[in-house]
Amino acid sequence: MLGTASAMPVVNRNQSAQALQVHGRLFLMDAGEGVQSQMVRYHVPMMKLESVFISHIHGDHVYGLFGLLSTFGMGGRTIPLHIYGPGNLKPFLTFFLSYNEWLPFEIAFHPVNTRFPEVIFETKSVSVTAFPLLHGIETYGYIFREKEPQWNVRKEFIAQYGLTLTEIGTLKRGEDVVRADGSVIPLADAAYKPFAPRSYAYVSDTAVFPGEAEVLKGITVLYHETTFLTEHEDKAASRFHTTTRQAAQVAVDAGVSKLLIGHYSSRNTDQNLYEAECRAVFPETYATADGDVYEI
Amino acid sequence: MLGTASAMPVVNRNQSAQALQVHGRLFLMDAGEGVQSQMVRYHVPMMKLESVFISHIHGDHVYGLFGLLSTFGMGGRTIPLHIYGPGNLKPFLTFFLSYNEWLPFEIAFHPVNTRFPEVIFETKSVSVTAFPLLHGIETYGYIFREKEPQWNVRKEFIAQYGLTLTEIGTLKRGEDVVRADGSVIPLADAAYKPFAPRSYAYVSDTAVFPGEAEVLKGITVLYHETTFLTEHEDKAASRFHTTTRQAAQVAVDAGVSKLLIGHYSSRNTDQNLYEAECRAVFPETYATADGDVYEI
Repeated sequence: MLGTASAMPVVNRNQSAQALQVHGRLFLMDAGEGVQSQMVRYHVPMMKLESVFISHIHGDHVYGLFGLLSTFGMGGRTIPLHIYGPGNLKPFLTFFLSYNEWLPFEIAFHPVNTRFPEVIFETKSVSVTAFPLLHGIETYGYIFREKEPQWNVRKEFIAQYGLTLTEIGTLKRGEDVVRADGSVIPLADAAYKPFAPRSYAYVSDTAVFPGEAEVLKGITVLYHETTFLTEHEDKAASRFHTTTRQAAQVAVDAGVSKLLIGHYSSRNTDQNLYEAECRAVFPETYATADGDVYEI
Repeated sequence: MLGTASAMPVVNRNQSAQALQVHGRLFLMDAGEGVQSQMVRYHVPMMKLESVFISHIHGDHVYGLFGLLSTFGMGGRTIPLHIYGPGNLKPFLTFFLSYNEWLPFEIAFHPVNTRFPEVIFETKSVSVTAFPLLHGIETYGYIFREKEPQWNVRKEFIAQYGLTLTEIGTLKRGEDVVRADGSVIPLADAAYKPFAPRSYAYVSDTAVFPGEAEVLKGITVLYHETTFLTEHEDKAASRFHTTTRQAAQVAVDAGVSKLLIGHYSSRNTDQNLYEAECRAVFPETYATADGDVYEI
């Protein structure tokens, strides 16, 4: 958690940004002002950053991009940086490049433009789905889904049954081994899944919207903004933000395992109040602070 | 001192920015990323900010402008904000405004363009002089000079000599009072200057250059960047920066009262090393840290 504040500056919370590590790959969600310093402060290996996913172009979600890109340039980065976000982010990058023609690496911008959940990026181990939020300006949420891992073959079986490389390959693909003599080595005995696929959803900024829980169904860990306490439900609606109870209800309806919250209004930055209101609806809620690390 | 780091991000030092209060007016010099948070953190009354003086458009001196301007907008500022800086700062403001047409206040940009020291701004109590630095890109230093105060008339004289309002006015203007009977009330007896005019120079970033000490002659407090320790004099020259000893020598040659230093290279952020090297040449040197406050 690199920034848990909303737009007005406060002490000890930076503006929106989160880093996510998935099987050694590093992703950034949003880039509020100061994100580069936060990455240094919290020992996030900045130079390994591969892709940035921007929710929308409000300043508290993007103004840290400029410094981050400059530092990558000064640091001699050569590998491309991929940036995903709404199309209106493009002029920010064009403006930056007009002042930094010497940049030694490529900025690959991938505009997101979808009305429905859509996979926008995929590797061997993870996929990223973008979906529209409701924020009065083009805004996207992002879901990171780990893919089903290969089966791991139990070491003791390899020796015990004298498994050949071909037979090991068969098990890894998730099939029983049937030998020439008709005997069967059942997959379920000889191999196991090292983990069940996990998922993380980044939802900031938005008002709650119809179908939101459907999009987030079964997510392992959901980050959902809670800009306002319940007493400010009117403000939340008029400014396209979410209250504590609303976010907690989404967590209930979507059946997630854990809810993380942040983006607290500057009028009240005591995260315990936000957490308590959520927990009354969804006990597995955790209010985040800058520097918090969660393992999924 | 709102930011004492150089360009690469480090922990516990923000990028370049300083606030200066002169007779209740608030000025900002440079606006490195995170300057708005620093102003909140160190209780600088941000909303009172009147003018910003930008040295040059390298990112570590300007990327904090965007967030600051956004926050002024959200905070409902209506009074104009004056920004002084090289002409190539203009597109930054144009870009910002293209995304913030709703801004409730005016940004008045005053391009600085001078080869010699020139007064660019003046009030009843202070003048600001811009002069070119040597940084491989258009860059300016700024000198803030308090004006000569009016003479204060000694209260005991008013009663003792039964001074008229006209006579008090004469003394305030700095003249002896000559009465109808030919008697003289000498200015030096009846009035005094409440303070000697003070001055502050902001010099960042630059290599030392011919005539620098002349420009800074007699300054009360000089802030001068010292990006490099003496051992890196080669780097300082090739990157248009200054070493500790070089800055201290400028302080000696200019006959300033006090030297403040900062903008330390990220390769060595121990300010005591920089201070010690300067003090060997100019004892009245103080290495600055974020949050330091100096009264001139």
